[in-house]
Amino acid sequence: MAESSSIRFGILGCAEIARKVSRAILLSPNSTLHAIGSRSIEKAQNFAKSNGFHPSTKIYGSYDEVLDDPEVDAVYVPLPTSLHLYWVVRAAQKMKHVLLEKPPALNVKELDMILGACDSNGVQFMDGTMWMHHPRTKVMADFLADNQRFGQLKTVQSCFTFAGDDDFLQNDIRVKPDLDGLGALGDSGWYCIRAILWAANYELPKFVTALRNPTKNDAGVLLSCGASLQWEDGKVATFHCSFLANLTMDITAIGTKGTLHVNDFIIPYKEAGGSFSTVSKAWFTDMDLEWDQKPSQHIVTADFPQEVGMIKEFSALVDGIKRQGIAPNKKWPTITRKTQLVIDAVVASIDKGFEPVEIS
Amino acid sequence: MAESSSIRFGILGCAEIARKVSRAILLSPNSTLHAIGSRSIEKAQNFAKSNGFHPSTKIYGSYDEVLDDPEVDAVYVPLPTSLHLYWVVRAAQKMKHVLLEKPPALNVKELDMILGACDSNGVQFMDGTMWMHHPRTKVMADFLADNQRFGQLKTVQSCFTFAGDDDFLQNDIRVKPDLDGLGALGDSGWYCIRAILWAANYELPKFVTALRNPTKNDAGVLLSCGASLQWEDGKVATFHCSFLANLTMDITAIGTKGTLHVNDFIIPYKEAGGSFSTVSKAWFTDMDLEWDQKPSQHIVTADFPQEVGMIKEFSALVDGIKRQGIAPNKKWPTITRKTQLVIDAVVASIDKGFEPVEIS
Repeated sequence: MAESSSIRFGILGCAEIARKVSRAILLSPNSTLHAIGSRSIEKAQNFAKSNGFHPSTKIYGSYDEVLDDPEVDAVYVPLPTSLHLYWVVRAAQKMKHVLLEKPPALNVKELDMILGACDSNGVQFMDGTMWMHHPRTKVMADFLADNQRFGQLKTVQSCFTFAGDDDFLQNDIRVKPDLDGLGALGDSGWYCIRAILWAANYELPKFVTALRNPTKNDAGVLLSCGASLQWEDGKVATFHCSFLANLTMDITAIGTKGTLHVNDFIIPYKEAGGSFSTVSKAWFTDMDLEWDQKPSQHIVTADFPQEVGMIKEFSALVDGIKRQGIAPNKKWPTITRKTQLVIDAVVASIDKGFEPVEIS
Repeated sequence: MAESSSIRFGILGCAEIARKVSRAILLSPNSTLHAIGSRSIEKAQNFAKSNGFHPSTKIYGSYDEVLDDPEVDAVYVPLPTSLHLYWVVRAAQKMKHVLLEKPPALNVKELDMILGACDSNGVQFMDGTMWMHHPRTKVMADFLADNQRFGQLKTVQSCFTFAGDDDFLQNDIRVKPDLDGLGALGDSGWYCIRAILWAANYELPKFVTALRNPTKNDAGVLLSCGASLQWEDGKVATFHCSFLANLTMDITAIGTKGTLHVNDFIIPYKEAGGSFSTVSKAWFTDMDLEWDQKPSQHIVTADFPQEVGMIKEFSALVDGIKRQGIAPNKKWPTITRKTQLVIDAVVASIDKGFEPVEIS
């Protein structure tokens, strides 16, 4: 039974991130790693060997062979963003469910073609935003949804920065206009935007305004930028993303009655669990000498790494479609599309000289 | 000697914050509380009694009597901002050194008249931003100045929010256009702007752009707002200040090599000390499974509350002027003026429809 209900994954390409996700496929109880394909079969062979893949894993010298393998249920696609449209549409047409590395597309127009192909072929789509699947994320969401402890959301500030070294800033696909043309916005900004939407219970902002002074490389790719988001009810949010500053990943969400701080939301400090802090209805002691309470630290232990949670959840959805005839889950493509809409609005705002862009 | 070197304070008015500062004057080793004046002598009497002032403290039924008392060396002015210009200029003309509650003025034009009066009369000026005087602040500044641990500053995010209750939002002087017309910007925003300037080693930004969606009350006073700041070298900062969200006070400063987090920078959780966290050159373990190091928590114990540190430092400066003929210290009025310049730019940007305002 365990064997027969395993979802069989194929991986397109030998990206560095595929090491982490292939490990997660191997660790997840409802998935198996069936195949990996690269344009170079030697590269695929070396990748399989150095990452300890089972000798029975199929090694292909092309992506198409993975898609043509009838035993592959689902593909994980860590290719450069500029290749997503072609390969995901092709995968969906071959009835493969799709776990797609972020950013999923260069713009929402491309994404809609990707999602449309998945929808019309009845395959599950999910983007590879791992932190959504950490058990901590659910516990934090419960805090944000609690009217007594958090109240109504008023503001979110998020950042994700890391200091790319010279090699990264010269050679990584994320600084190449023809590969991952959204640069820091599509890579680290994706997480910040998702965090803001998550905190806002996925309500889209009305306006997005890019902050002035984004940094671009000589090829015009964003190395750092930020934006402010405004909702009609008065909520506001800002984020900053960068390849040029020390590793930092924060969400600060403030409601009328409570505050959430998390400083390792994308990749927790330790695999074994994640922490965050909350404080509700905080005020000062007499004469404002000190706080009447200190924030509480919460630790959520994790039975498995968040990327394993992602594979497990994706595989369960695929299993439901494959064996029980359940329709593909709509939540995941919906939040992917909302995140991409905000990405597009930031790009448009930068292009329009930092004017606000309405999200309709 | 201790007695003769004590700086004798007079207080103008019975504001709530004067309770905290009068306690600090009493606790500081180089100051004494000599007099308090209010437009109502009964109010001053009650204030002195309920706050345990020594019976020898002079109680006056007007501010002028405090200024005319030849034994008063310095005045602490916690009056509404709209009264600062008149009373501080008057105090300076009577050769009283001035510790002025923030925001110091409604705009930099008024502030320049205040600072000009202090300068031409040779009296010390300092604003009442207490956290500048916590020993933690110096330790954090040392981290930010450390090229190995922090590198070059790239971005700062700061917020100060608190949830004013109905009484506050209806009646506090900080929501009244004729008393503290800068509202949340002048009150909580002051701290955020100061924090950003402090992190930037007081280098003024080139441009300030208010964020869209500020909240104003029916009288047009800001209840929440934010801004982004841009420097010519690529540094950026944002802040959010509000009377409408749960108590939160953060500085996140990110450099090329290090990150500083402090979540109680204005009033520490506990009087006995303050904490902050830092991490330098952080990266991930193999496969980005977790961080290669966790941020370090630092605790700086305080021999006395930060407001006592403020009184002590101010009194020492006054003592130097009074007894040793040293010129008034210029650092404090200079950083006050820089903070006010940014406040003014935020107001101007809001008035100009969120266009960037150049600081010259």
